[in-house]
Order: sequence, then C-alpha cells, then structure tokens
Amino acid sequence: MENAGMHFFTEFLGSLILIILGNGVVANVVLKNTKGYKSPFLMIALGWGFAVAVGATVAAALGGKAHLNPAVTIAMVVNGWESGVGSWGLFPIFIIAQFLGFFVGQIIVDLFYFDHIKKHFKKDSEDFGTKSVLAMHSTGPQTRTLWVNFFSEFIGTALLVTFILAIGKIGTLPTYLGPIFVGMVIMAIGCSLSGTTGYAINPFRDLTPRIVYQLLTFLPFANREESADWQYSWIPVVAPMSAGILVGALFLI
Amino acid sequence: MENAGMHFFTEFLGSLILIILGNGVVANVVLKNTKGYKSPFLMIALGWGFAVAVGATVAAALGGKAHLNPAVTIAMVVNGWESGVGSWGLFPIFIIAQFLGFFVGQIIVDLFYFDHIKKHFKKDSEDFGTKSVLAMHSTGPQTRTLWVNFFSEFIGTALLVTFILAIGKIGTLPTYLGPIFVGMVIMAIGCSLSGTTGYAINPFRDLTPRIVYQLLTFLPFANREESADWQYSWIPVVAPMSAGILVGALFLI
Amino acid sequence: MENAGMHFFTEFLGSLILIILGNGVVANVVLKNTKGYKSPFLMIALGWGFAVAVGATVAAALGGKAHLNPAVTIAMVVNGWESGVGSWGLFPIFIIAQFLGFFVGQIIVDLFYFDHIKKHFKKDSEDFGTKSVLAMHSTGPQTRTLWVNFFSEFIGTALLVTFILAIGKIGTLPTYLGPIFVGMVIMAIGCSLSGTTGYAINPFRDLTPRIVYQLLTFLPFANREESADWQYSWIPVVAPMSAGILVGALFLI
Amino acid sequence: MENAGMHFFTEFLGSLILIILGNGVVANVVLKNTKGYKSPFLMIALGWGFAVAVGATVAAALGGKAHLNPAVTIAMVVNGWESGVGSWGLFPIFIIAQFLGFFVGQIIVDLFYFDHIKKHFKKDSEDFGTKSVLAMHSTGPQTRTLWVNFFSEFIGTALLVTFILAIGKIGTLPTYLGPIFVGMVIMAIGCSLSGTTGYAINPFRDLTPRIVYQLLTFLPFANREESADWQYSWIPVVAPMSAGILVGALFLI
Repeated sequence: MENAGMHFFTEFLGSLILIILGNGVVANVVLKNTKGYKSPFLMIALGWGFAVAVGATVAAALGGKAHLNPAVTIAMVVNGWESGVGSWGLFPIFIIAQFLGFFVGQIIVDLFYFDHIKKHFKKDSEDFGTKSVLAMHSTGPQTRTLWVNFFSEFIGTALLVTFILAIGKIGTLPTYLGPIFVGMVIMAIGCSLSGTTGYAINPFRDLTPRIVYQLLTFLPFANREESADWQYSWIPVVAPMSAGILVGALFLI
Repeated sequence: MENAGMHFFTEFLGSLILIILGNGVVANVVLKNTKGYKSPFLMIALGWGFAVAVGATVAAALGGKAHLNPAVTIAMVVNGWESGVGSWGLFPIFIIAQFLGFFVGQIIVDLFYFDHIKKHFKKDSEDFGTKSVLAMHSTGPQTRTLWVNFFSEFIGTALLVTFILAIGKIGTLPTYLGPIFVGMVIMAIGCSLSGTTGYAINPFRDLTPRIVYQLLTFLPFANREESADWQYSWIPVVAPMSAGILVGALFLI
Repeated sequence: MENAGMHFFTEFLGSLILIILGNGVVANVVLKNTKGYKSPFLMIALGWGFAVAVGATVAAALGGKAHLNPAVTIAMVVNGWESGVGSWGLFPIFIIAQFLGFFVGQIIVDLFYFDHIKKHFKKDSEDFGTKSVLAMHSTGPQTRTLWVNFFSEFIGTALLVTFILAIGKIGTLPTYLGPIFVGMVIMAIGCSLSGTTGYAINPFRDLTPRIVYQLLTFLPFANREESADWQYSWIPVVAPMSAGILVGALFLI
Repeated sequence: MENAGMHFFTEFLGSLILIILGNGVVANVVLKNTKGYKSPFLMIALGWGFAVAVGATVAAALGGKAHLNPAVTIAMVVNGWESGVGSWGLFPIFIIAQFLGFFVGQIIVDLFYFDHIKKHFKKDSEDFGTKSVLAMHSTGPQTRTLWVNFFSEFIGTALLVTFILAIGKIGTLPTYLGPIFVGMVIMAIGCSLSGTTGYAINPFRDLTPRIVYQLLTFLPFANREESADWQYSWIPVVAPMSAGILVGALFLI
C-alpha cells in the first residue's frame, strides 16, 4: 500500500489545522469577551475559507491529496478512486485520519478558548449560556424544516464537490493553487449559502466537534445537562455524503 | 456546429452557479433570521465577486467560454464572434443556456431560502414585508431618475466589458486566472458602483430572477399582489446591452 | 517619440477607471441613501485597492506602463526615466494624460451619484450638508497639524513607491501580476495609514477631484458657497511628490 | 560572510514596513477620531496579513530571506541554518536587524498617529485613556490565565512556522508568491486565533513596540505613570520562540 503513512499524516494534519482555524473563527465571533466578539458574519465566511486553504496547502505541500472532508473522499471513491487516489486500502486511512484530525483539532480549539468556554458554562448573574459553545463546535439550523435543511447542506456540498472535480480537469493549474481555489469556493459558499444551516458541507466538520462538545458537557465545570442537538446531527452528515456520491457519479458521464 | 453541447452545458452550469451564489449572498443579507442578516454591504460586494469567479472557473474548466452574461456575449458578437467564439450558430445556444441557467439557479436559491421567503410573505403581527424578497431576486434603484439609473448600469457594464476585453489581450495570462480577474472587477464594481441601482450589469441577472419572483407571487402562500417593479425592469436589460455593444465596437478600433 | 499615443491613451484610461472606482467607493459609503451608506471603512480600503488593481490591469493589458500617479512618474524620472520608461518627450504625455483621466473620471463619478450629490447640496429640513460631497472628491485631515499631515502623506507614498520599485526588481514576476500586487499594497495602506489624512498618496487623486468639486459648487443647484478646503490642498500634492523623488533617488544607490 | 549587508538591510526594511502597516492598522481601529475608529476586527485581521505580505515581498524582492520574525529565524536555526540560510555569522545579523526594524518602524507609527496619541494621554474632560495607546503597540490578554495565554501564543506560532516550513517544500512555488502565502496564513490566524491574546506570534512584534511605549510614557506630555504591562510581556516572547524551536525540530524528522 503506497504511502499509507504519508496519506494518514497529511490528512490528519490538514484536518487538524482546518478545524483549529475554522472553528477558531467561529469561537472568536460567538464567545463573549474575545477580541472578535460580535464581528460581522463576513469574518466567519472569510476565516473558514482561509482555514481550508491553509489546511489544504500544508497537506498538499507535504505530498498529500488534501481531501480533509469525507464528502470529497466519497466523491473520489465514486469518480475513480484507483486512478485518482490509489490503492483501495488507502480509503479507510483517509477516513480515520480525517476523523482523528478533526477530533484532536477541536480539543485544541477548546483548550485555546478554555477560559471563555468556562465562563459560558458558568451559571451566575451574567449567565452567557451554552448556545454559543455549541455554535463554535457544530452547525445548527435557523428553521427546523427537514427538507430545507437537507437541501441546504446538499446544495452547498454539491457546489463544493463540483468545483473541486472541475478544477481537477484544468491541466495547467499549478498544484499549489488548488488549495487557494478551494479556499475561494469556501468563502463563496460562506457568504451565500450559510444563511439557513450554517454550511457544514463536511460530515466530520460537524459530527466530530459535536462529539467533543458532548464530552465537554460531562466535565465537572460544565454539568448543566446541555443538549448537543443530536436530533439534527444526521443532516450535516447524510446530506453532504449524498451530494458527494451524486456529483462524483455525474462527473463520470 | 462545433461543441454546441459543451457550450450549452458550460454556459448553463456556470450561470446556474453564478446566480445561486450571487443572489444567495443577497438573500443571506436581506432576509430576516438568516445567519448573515444585516451584514455590511461589503459581504454582498465580495460575495458577488466570488460568485462570478466560481461560476466562470467551473465553466472554463469544463472547456467553455464562460460569458455567463448576455452583455458580454453581445460584446463578443460586435468584437468578432467568429474569431473569438466560433460559428454563429452558437450565438442562440449561449443566450438560451444563460437564460435557463439563471432561471433554474434562481429557483434553487428560492428553495434554499424557502422558509425565510415564506415568512416574509406572511401577513402577521411581525410582518417582514416582501421588499426583501424582491431585493434577493432583482436590483432596484435608490432614486427614480431615468437617466441616472441608465447611466449607472451603462457605466458599470462598460467597465466590466472593457476589463474583460482588455485582459483578453494579455497573451501570457493563464486561462485559469481569467475568472479570478473577472471576479476581482466584480468586487470592485460592487464596492464602488453599487450605490445607485445595485449593479445588475447583466441583463439576465436581473430579468430572469424577476420572472421567477413574479411566478413566486402567484403561489398560494404568497398571494399579496406584490409588484415585481416591471416598470424599472427594462433599464438593467437595455443599459448593459448598449454598453456591451459600444465597448465591443470601440475595441475594434 | 515611441508610442506617445499608446502611453497617453493607457495612462488616461487607467486613471479614469482608477478614479471612477476609487472615489466611487467613497461616494457609496459617505453619501446618504446609497446601498453602501455607512459601510465600515474596510470597504473603502478594499475598494480603493481593487480600483488601482483594475485601472492598472487595463492600462498594462493595453501595453502601457500603468503609473496612474504623478508621484510614481516622478520616481521614475529620478530613478532612470530613459531606461525605465523611454524618451523624455513622453514625460509630459504621462502627466497630462493622468490629469485628464482623473478629471473626466471624477465627472463620471459625479454624474453617477448626481441624485445623491444634489440631495446633499439641498438646504431643507433634513439638510445632509456638503462635507460628504467634498469627502467623495478629496481627502481631508482629522487633525490640522501641518507636520503630522505632511508626514502621513509622505510615509504612505514612500511605502507605495518603495513597493513598486522593489517588485520591479523581481525578474520572474509575470507582468499581469504587477497591478494585483500594487492593489494589495493600496489595500494595506488603506487599512493602516488612512487614519490621519485619508491617504491621498497621489497628487492628482486629490487635486483633480478638488478642482471638479470647486466647479460643482458653481452650479446653480449647489450655490451654497462651500469651501473646497484649498488651504489644505497643497499637502497631498507636495508630500507625495517629495516621497516619490526621495525614494526614486534612494533606489539608485 | 556572504551578503551580510544585504541580509541586514532586507530584514531591517521588511521588519520596518511590517510594523508600520501592522501596528498602523491597530492604531487606525483603536485610537479615537481616526478614519478607521471602531472598525470591525476583520480590518485588523486583514490589515496585519497585508502588512506581513508587503513587508516580506519587499524584503524578498531585494534578495533577502524575509524572516522578519525571530521565531521563524530560530526555527531555521533548528531546521538547518547553514543549508537554509547560510553562514552562522549571519544569525546575529538577522536578529539585530529585525529588532532595529521594529524599533524604528514603531517610532514612525507613533509619529504618524502623534496627534491622536497625545489626545489619548491628555487628562481632560473627555479622557480617552492610554489603554488604546498600549494596544496599538503590544498585545494583551483577554483573561489572565498563564497556561491559556502561553498556549494561545504557542499554537498560533506553531501554525505559522508549520505553514512556512511546509510551503518551503513546494519546489514549484514561485519566490514572489511565498510572501503572499504567508500573508494569507497571517489573515487566517488573525481571524481565528486572535480571540484570547491578540496573536503576537512574533517576539519582536510585541517586545520592541512595548519598549517604545515605555519610552513614550517618559515624554513630558505623557507623564501619567502608565504601565506597559511588563508582567505579561514574557509570554509573547517565550511562547513563540518555543513553538519555533519545536516545529523547526519536528520538520527534521
């Protein structure tokens, strides 16, 4: 199995950097008393784009494929894994490395903003509440209409995967520009398609931090029986994966 | 007729992506209770630039010319269609594909923000009104002075087409950078020349969503006899087309 | 005299585009009832950067040197006009073309925002005042301390010219990236060195629109005896020119 | 010792430009009565990115290595100074040039915003206070938890150095794009990892302006016995240096 270690390491490191910077900007905007508190949403849209561009640049610079997203990986599975990525044995390597990268990365974000998170969990006269803490981990919908939520995540991811597969066809695009282009489409989606569900468009970007959030609520200081909104959690997983599969298949035509 | 199918498909897909992201950002800013509600206008200016860059990148990556705008297409007609694009039989292909792309794309935006749109149409104690719904479809002028409105759309489009024809003369510009450069000029116009009419600078970007808005008002839930402001609608069509023709001709000199 | 016509035309057209987009964004932010009214200063900083990048891209694409600024031209005079630009007979061509470009461009901005300007000049119950109209033409200092004002414009221009002369030494920089790089430094200066005087850093960017503003106040509808602040006007001319001369000379060492 | 003068000069000039633009944007946002007063934090995040990109572009264009940061220099020491930079005799040259660049650059920022700084130091009816003056010199933590502060500066710098060492491995990256890429990661960190301590991620970016601030408080007009917060000052020095050493060593594996 060629370069299994390299693929594991670059997907892990890229995902870790992506989520540190990605959920870092959300934390900076939604947690009280940070430097960036209550910044306009544009900072989140641009910050997430930078996060993906930086994570993917590092992963690609070290020789990796820089998927950093199971919806992209599944699109490659459908679109021609062996020609596009390599041996099938690499597939679980990608998925596991991504999950672990998001998991460790989110813990780093939580340590980084530990003082602020603690303040939000504290029940006192100026109770900040824990909604912001969940928001800096996982996405949540503005309205609870199942098909609208699913449609939102599906369209956003379909656009992302379409863009990635399309630029893959530009023979002259220098490798180092790929991550920058993907960062741009993340900024585009962040500006335009964030309004309803907050654009997870990546199963692990939502699911893994949600698990970390759940663990967080078990800590002594956080014992407030706060919900991690598991009821909603399947949408930012299933919709992106469906979009990845569909667009991957459409690009075979 | 060479590649008629490819040109149809790339113009359609590029226009569809362009309007999803383009009117998506307007929806995110003007519709109540979205994540981006009341964001500064800068998000619209940048978001529309990303929208054009992303749509054009996808269209160009798949082999297309990436006009995505009848004012650009008409400039090419005047400037030398056969040398610049190809057989004249392709001309209607471009126009029809663009129209359909904007049409289907706007319907996707409306489905995406369906919950929010419905809320705006609802007559209840906290009536949101439908002005924002029209704004996320089509442009509208801040003042109703005919020549100022016409002049605004004319100058904005003239600048866009001048830029596109000028960079076409840079022999060394890599193909994949063209859409990025055009995205930049859209951001420039969005920051600077949006103040009066909201910079349609593309007939179908305004006309096609206006038709979709009109259809929307016929739906049962939307039955409020809301105007689609057809009175104004010819300006963002005629002014951009005139600018395209004039600049296309000037570049022949 | 080689290419005198081309140099005249590209400097004229580039300067015209630069000021339309540059003072366009200021108008959009400071004039009441525009789409961008009261946008954060960041939109001005980014918008001016786009304005310079777009104007210079067009000028360069059509074969020009894309100075678009007498302070840059004077730096070239000192730094080696004949080797850098060409025959000395071209020197007045550059200066005259720039002045005319800014002059006609500002008139276009004023026509574009005509309705809004008129409203500001009108004396009525909700008097908007004319300070914003002067601000969308020329810069003005936050404090009236001569040496601080001079120093501000001097440092800003010195940085701009240093950057331009430095990137001129990068042998491998593609020509089409030059204007983008200069746009970036304008954004940098706009974010950081705008706080005191509003960064003219270009004599004609300030002087020419001030003349247009003065002419504007002579129009019947504007007859309010409004000052164009001529007392301050020499600073954004002399300071940038001095910086251009000094940095141009330093780069000879 | 090869090119000692060139390395001294480019590190000095790049650091000087970096801090003028970097602390310039903070001054523009935090000092009262500037054009950019109370701008959203995003302007600081983007402005600092532009500052680093511009400073590094100038330094690199003139032949330098463009470290402009002792934490980057120490990473190079660990990672292979002789192969990466050159003779060991250059090491003190880099450090001294950086310190002097930040020192002189900060004095220029203080002269630039002199009127505003004086107003902040003045004790009168509308006392502006000096907290903003310290903020435009050096960083300060939102909460005083030692390990959180250290961790914040450590993670931010580790990410920066990881990114720099990673893109160093992209054989095809054009030299002129290196500074732009680094500017992007600074924007990313500014959006995401600024929330707690204000991201010094560069010892001299914090220490040197703090010294200048201390000297400022000795001036007659500033005699208010204002603290330069020396108690905190070691963290933005030791944490970044530790991160530089660790990441430099990890990249040897």
